[in-house]
Order: sequence, then C-alpha cells, then structure tokens
Amino acid sequence: MKVVLLEYTRNPETVCAVAALTSMKEGTPSDMLKEIDEDNAKKRIQRVVGYGHYSVIEHANFTFSIEGISRACSHQLVRHRIASFTQQSQRYVKMEDVPFVTPPSIKKNKSAEEIFKNSLKETAETYKKLLELGITPEDARFVLPNATKTNLVMTMNARELLHLFNLRCCNRAQWEIRDMAWEMLYQVLDVSPALFETSGPKCISEGICTEGKSSCGCYKLFEGKNIDQRRIIVKEFYK
Amino acid sequence: MKVVLLEYTRNPETVCAVAALTSMKEGTPSDMLKEIDEDNAKKRIQRVVGYGHYSVIEHANFTFSIEGISRACSHQLVRHRIASFTQQSQRYVKMEDVPFVTPPSIKKNKSAEEIFKNSLKETAETYKKLLELGITPEDARFVLPNATKTNLVMTMNARELLHLFNLRCCNRAQWEIRDMAWEMLYQVLDVSPALFETSGPKCISEGICTEGKSSCGCYKLFEGKNIDQRRIIVKEFYK
Amino acid sequence: MKVVLLEYTRNPETVCAVAALTSMKEGTPSDMLKEIDEDNAKKRIQRVVGYGHYSVIEHANFTFSIEGISRACSHQLVRHRIASFTQQSQRYVKMEDVPFVTPPSIKKNKSAEEIFKNSLKETAETYKKLLELGITPEDARFVLPNATKTNLVMTMNARELLHLFNLRCCNRAQWEIRDMAWEMLYQVLDVSPALFETSGPKCISEGICTEGKSSCGCYKLFEGKNIDQRRIIVKEFYK
Amino acid sequence: MKVVLLEYTRNPETVCAVAALTSMKEGTPSDMLKEIDEDNAKKRIQRVVGYGHYSVIEHANFTFSIEGISRACSHQLVRHRIASFTQQSQRYVKMEDVPFVTPPSIKKNKSAEEIFKNSLKETAETYKKLLELGITPEDARFVLPNATKTNLVMTMNARELLHLFNLRCCNRAQWEIRDMAWEMLYQVLDVSPALFETSGPKCISEGICTEGKSSCGCYKLFEGKNIDQRRIIVKEFYK
Repeated sequence: MKVVLLEYTRNPETVCAVAALTSMKEGTPSDMLKEIDEDNAKKRIQRVVGYGHYSVIEHANFTFSIEGISRACSHQLVRHRIASFTQQSQRYVKMEDVPFVTPPSIKKNKSAEEIFKNSLKETAETYKKLLELGITPEDARFVLPNATKTNLVMTMNARELLHLFNLRCCNRAQWEIRDMAWEMLYQVLDVSPALFETSGPKCISEGICTEGKSSCGCYKLFEGKNIDQRRIIVKEFYK
Repeated sequence: MKVVLLEYTRNPETVCAVAALTSMKEGTPSDMLKEIDEDNAKKRIQRVVGYGHYSVIEHANFTFSIEGISRACSHQLVRHRIASFTQQSQRYVKMEDVPFVTPPSIKKNKSAEEIFKNSLKETAETYKKLLELGITPEDARFVLPNATKTNLVMTMNARELLHLFNLRCCNRAQWEIRDMAWEMLYQVLDVSPALFETSGPKCISEGICTEGKSSCGCYKLFEGKNIDQRRIIVKEFYK
Repeated sequence: MKVVLLEYTRNPETVCAVAALTSMKEGTPSDMLKEIDEDNAKKRIQRVVGYGHYSVIEHANFTFSIEGISRACSHQLVRHRIASFTQQSQRYVKMEDVPFVTPPSIKKNKSAEEIFKNSLKETAETYKKLLELGITPEDARFVLPNATKTNLVMTMNARELLHLFNLRCCNRAQWEIRDMAWEMLYQVLDVSPALFETSGPKCISEGICTEGKSSCGCYKLFEGKNIDQRRIIVKEFYK
Repeated sequence: MKVVLLEYTRNPETVCAVAALTSMKEGTPSDMLKEIDEDNAKKRIQRVVGYGHYSVIEHANFTFSIEGISRACSHQLVRHRIASFTQQSQRYVKMEDVPFVTPPSIKKNKSAEEIFKNSLKETAETYKKLLELGITPEDARFVLPNATKTNLVMTMNARELLHLFNLRCCNRAQWEIRDMAWEMLYQVLDVSPALFETSGPKCISEGICTEGKSSCGCYKLFEGKNIDQRRIIVKEFYK
C-alpha cells in the first residue's frame, strides 16, 4: 500500500480561519485574508475544532492517491459518501498481472499462506483464460478476488477526514483500512497540524471509547501521556 | 437476483404534489394535503417532472431489498452517494455456502463456463480451509471473488432513482446492474406511475443519447412508438 | 408555528431492523421481513442506536410540514444538507398578508413590542406599495423582514433527525428552531419510540455537554431522573 | 457585490486528468502525476467533460469569498447542498450599519426607490432601538429585511459548479444570483479553462433550453457564434 497526498487546498488553516472569522465579524473575507497572520489562524482553528464547529473546516480539501489496496479495503472506503472517488475500473482495464494483497494473519500462518497463494495464482490464470476465450474484462473479472489490488484517487474535506479517522484509526476497524487511515492521518498532520492535531480514533480525539465489550482497552494506558504518545499506544496495541 | 420493494413513503405522489404547491401558494402544506385529490396530485407531478423541478420529488423515498447480486454489481451500486445502504458483511458473516453469479456471456460459452465454475468451486474450498486453519472471515474473504452473491437494503428518493435509471438502464451499463435497474423501475412505476412514467435511460427520459460513438443506437427505432414500446425496444436491443 | 408529520416510511423500526440483520446474517432481507416480529425489531433497533451504528436507521424517512416559522428560522433549518426541502417562494408568491413571528423577548418588553409591530406594519405597507408601482414580488420582497412567516415541507431520515435534535434541542440553539425541534422530536417519538427513545440534545442522548463556559448547566439536575424527566428539565430550564 | 476566488486545488486540471487516467489504466496515480504534461491533461479533461463523466472533476475544489450580496440571494445559494458554506451570523454579529442591496428595477423607478430607501432606513433605526432596549441581536434581527447585505465563504467542486452555472447563469434565474454566478464563472474560467470552457446556462453547455414557454429565447441568436460570443449574447439579452 502506498498513500500519496497529491494536492490540497492551499493554506488550509488560513482559509478555514477566515471562514470562522466571517461568521463572527462584520468585515469581508477577502479583507480578513489580508490581515490574518499564520499564528492567529492556527489559534483560531484550534479553538474551532475544540468546540466542534466542524462546518468551518470543510473548506480545506485533500486529494490522495491510494495505491495497491485490496478491493476488500476499497469497498469499505467508498462507503464514505461525503467524498469524491475515482477508482481503477475492472470493466475497462484488462489486467496484465493480477497483483494481490495478503493479510498479515495469513502471512504468519505457513499452511494458510500456501493455499492462499495457490488459490490466487489459479484465479489469475482463470482470468487470463477467460479473456483468451473471448470473455470481456467486465465479465472475466467475476473470478477476481477481494485480494486484488486497486488504485484510486480520493478527495475529502477536513471534517470528513476527522470522521474517517474516528472510525478507521480505531483498533476495531479492519486492519488494512486502519493502516491506510493512519498513513493518511500522518500526512495531513504534516501539512496542517492545527486542523488535525487532536485527530485519531475516538479514544484520542474525544477521550471516549464507544465500543463497549469489544473495546481494545488501549485507552487504559493513556494516563500521563500526550497525544503523540497516545497515538503510538493505539497503533502498537494490537501487534 | 431478486428485487423487492420493501417499503416506501405513503402516498408518494400526493406528498410531492403538496410540496410543489407549497412553493407556489400562500396556504399551509397540511391544509393542502386535505384539499388535494389524487387526480390533481398526479397532474401536478407530471408537470413538475416535465419541467425538471426534481427537488420536489425528493420527498418520496423507496426502500428496496436487493438479493443475490454479485459483489461486482454492488460495488457499482454503492457509488451512488445520495442513498442509504446496508449490505451483508463479509467481515462478520461466515458463509456456509459461497453462492455466486455467472455472467450470461460465460453461460453461453461451454469452455468458459467450465473453467469459471471450477475456479469458483476451488475458491470456495480455499475459503473454508482458511477458516478451518483459524483465519478469521474478515481475512479469509480475501480469496472470495467478485462473483460472490450479496444482499443489501437500499433507500433512495425518487430524484436519485431517476438519475440511477438514466445511467443504469442504458445499454452501455454493465448487464447486471442494468437488469437490477430495470427491475426497480418497473416496481416503482407500479406504485407511483406519475413519478416514474417518463423514466428510463436518457434516450427515453430526455430524448437524447450522449454516448457518442459508443451508442447502441436503439433510439433510431423509437419513431412512432409510445414510451412503453420504447422501453421494450431498449431492453430487447442487446439480446 | 405548527409542525405536522405528513408521512413517513411505513413500519420504520421493522425496516431498519431488517437492514441491521442483513449486514450480520446470510438470509435475504425479504425473508427476514416475514420472520421478524415487532418486539424483536424494537430490541434490535435499541441495540443498534445504543452502539451508534446509525447508518442502519437512515432507511426510515420522515416528511414534515413546518408552518408559520420565521425566515430567520428557515434560514438555519435549510443549512442541514442531508435533507430535502421545498419552501414557499417569495419570488413567485405575491403575499396578500405579510404574517410575522414575534420573538418572546420582544413580546415581554412593551416598548420593544410597540416599535417592532409598527416597523413590521410599515414594512408590509411598503411591500404592497412597491407591488402597486409595478415592482415584481421577486424584487419587492427585498423589504420583507426575517420575521416574515414561511411554510416548508422537509424530509429527513432518522439518522439526520438525531443529529438535528442534538444541535437544535439544546438550550444554546435559537429559541424558535429549538421549539420546532422539540415539537418534531415528540412527534417522531410517538410513531417510532425505539428509534428516538434516547434522542434529544447531547446532554440527554450522549450524556455529555460540549458547550463549555456557555453551557446552560441543566445536566446538573439530571441525577436520579429518567429520560422523560430529563427532557422536561431541559425544556423548562430557560423559562 | 464582490466575488473573490480565495483558494482552490492546485493544478486542478492535472489532478482531475490523473483521476481520469486512474480509472482506465493499470499504473498508479502518483506515477501518472509525474508523467502527464499540462497539454495532455487539458485534452483529457476536455474529453471527460465532453462525455459528461463529471465525477472525475469533483477532485477540483474552489473556495470563494462572496461579499455584499442580499440575504435573499444567500438564501437561494445555500440551497445547493453539495457545497460548504460559512456565513456571517445575524445571531452573533451586532451590525453597526445595516448595509443593503437595491434591486435594479427599484433603482430605475424613482417613486419605488424613495419608499424603498425610507423603509430600509426606518428598519435600520428600529433594529438599533431594539438593541438599545436590551433585545439581543438574535431577536432584533427579526426586523432586518431580505435586502440586508451578507458575506460568506463557499467551497464547491467543479462538478457542482457546472450545475450551479447551468441553473444560475440562466436568464430565468433571479438577477442577483445570476450576476454572482457569471462572476464566479469568469473567475474559474481564468484559472482552469479546460474544466470550464463549455460552462454556462444549459443553452450554452448542453445546447438545449428546457424553460419551455418561459424561455428568454436568447439561443435563437446563437447561430454562427462561438462560445464566448454566446455567453455575451446571454448576458446582454435582458438589459
């Protein structure tokens, strides 16, 4: 899996801070943009996110390239409806190779790994034979497994990203989309610390765990730790 | 594949007609609801849809059970973002059988059909062996193919349904989602003729084909045909 | 203000319970619909809402007539984007009367009430004179105040309703949209107790207050009270 | 009215072209981004928009400052639901002045203009008196008219912008939102010609007019004119 932040709204914190000011002041947004300094913008964003006034941070958009995830993972990802997706088509792309993702639990289990690899190898051959027999890629793909790798371009605003991190950075999420979400989180944190500094699973961003009996319990180790340390605790908890 | 209209907004045409009246008159919607008769409602809806004032028909919602479609088909379906979906989970459901969909083009081709069936049979066995080896359903499903059957519950309003029919009843759509879309169309047409009487692919609903060189050309046979006959022409065109 | 529940998805709890089952079981939704009893549906919905699996309750839609609210209130309401609205048009409706809403704080203050009423009376006259001078309703309405009454039809699913109640039943919301939200809450509670039994402002539905220094503090009186009593405490707190 | 394009996705055409390629090719988006040249990106976007494959251009987002429009205009604008808005609050901003918008039809009519201005002047005084009497801005604003100026920050993707231009650049739209839409169109055309080169009202972008008897008829003058000339014809048609 490779996650690349392709592009994003220039100066995301300043733009969102100007929006926040617009709702509370008489001046015009274009004047505010000239007057606001970066430090002020940062502070305003921290306050806005702290109070949960998330509509303001929708003005910051982020476009990712997400490469080599399984179709199992992409099927979960495209269920986020407040986002834009363009995905590699199995209807139109005749795959030369059929690259696939192997779950870690299968990698760790020698017998499982062997039958898994054999199965995927045979499936890839079946796919090719179907094409040779004149079946279109659109129909030949019916044999392709969830493990098949896919690429997609996704655009999401900061508000929906916070929501995605809430759900998908949680240890209860599927391992692959969780890896993807953490990778995305660190990348947006890098370009916009104020927007994302408290983001993560709910135990981090809201200080609560709603998973009940299914909770991983990682939050019990949070005492006395700052947010970076907490993120590491969550990520390491299942390994 | 089986499509069942589970539930829908009661009196969809009356509700939408009252909404249409609300925007144009001084009275209250609840009074209008008492006064409007069915025939009037019908006429108003026909006018509203004719002019393309589609926001008014969003008040009518339809909930479908869609059963036994392939995951290839469901992956396309869930890309409609103005809708609500609940789909059978391959993370949580440990499948006893692995039922699958066979594309017609494969059914027609004996050699293709044989290798297709063998491949899916072996895949199903691999899936079970992985479970036996202690792999969770969430990871074992990585071998499951696009052909695997799935069930889902979907709710969509009349406006988005018109859009879905525009795209998915077209001969250029994938055969399976096209079958599903036509099945849905006939079912909503049955319960709400005024809302859906002109619905179908763009060649029917808007009288234009935007597919350019890829057009199936069915509209060339439309001259002198009413809308029911046109629907039959489109549906029969590819067989 | 008058709020009327015009229509809604038939058997909302059963439909949502079937959706919940669909995600977790191998059977088809249409079979589940035949087998499920009302009591079971209710329990399943309570569990689903308790765990915050809100996507499942999107299948239940509710259509309201909202009558005689101010344009100040409707401007806030239409900012909810996951909903469908049809509102009385001031472009097309030439108003015979210009009915208006008087805020309680103005009703209580004799001097304020007098200048408020005079102002609105003069405004209504100006509106009529502009029409007489040949100005179109679309342009004459520029003098009409936020206080002017409006009607609208709104459709929203149960998930978005929970969100609306979270924000708008809170004592920090504007008084008019708060009155409207509480009225809506009691009406949907009546037709679907399991879907809405824990709904209300965040202090009720989630047991937390995120308003910081601006909190009304009502939750301090919650100890030993059941949810109905808590709702009454919140509603009475500001009077 | 002043419209300022505050920020937008960097390299909007390249990003969207890479998305388009992603759906049709085996390579990764990040590699495609390195390889694609500007000219190629442009051509691909033109083809994509020509075929109506609009999902691909959702990856380009544009953030505007819209300043000094009337609340009548903003009420229409915020009805576009696939967008993000932050608007100056009349609940929280205590207005020193009450600036307002005068419709051209009123400016042209001396008697109308006089009573219009007097009415707004008195209304502004009433607003201030209410504040002096201790009424909160939230309630005092009930007297403020639709003509009152407002500022807002709006983010919209290219697909939704095309839709907004379809509806709001049409001569049948309200004059103020039409002026705003044309201003926005020329600004995005400037930074991204390939995305917007065919945009405008339906008579321009799709070559059809769906307004029936209410059509302004401008398209009858389109013969032999290129798209820039057509835009000028539409804009000048009503003056």
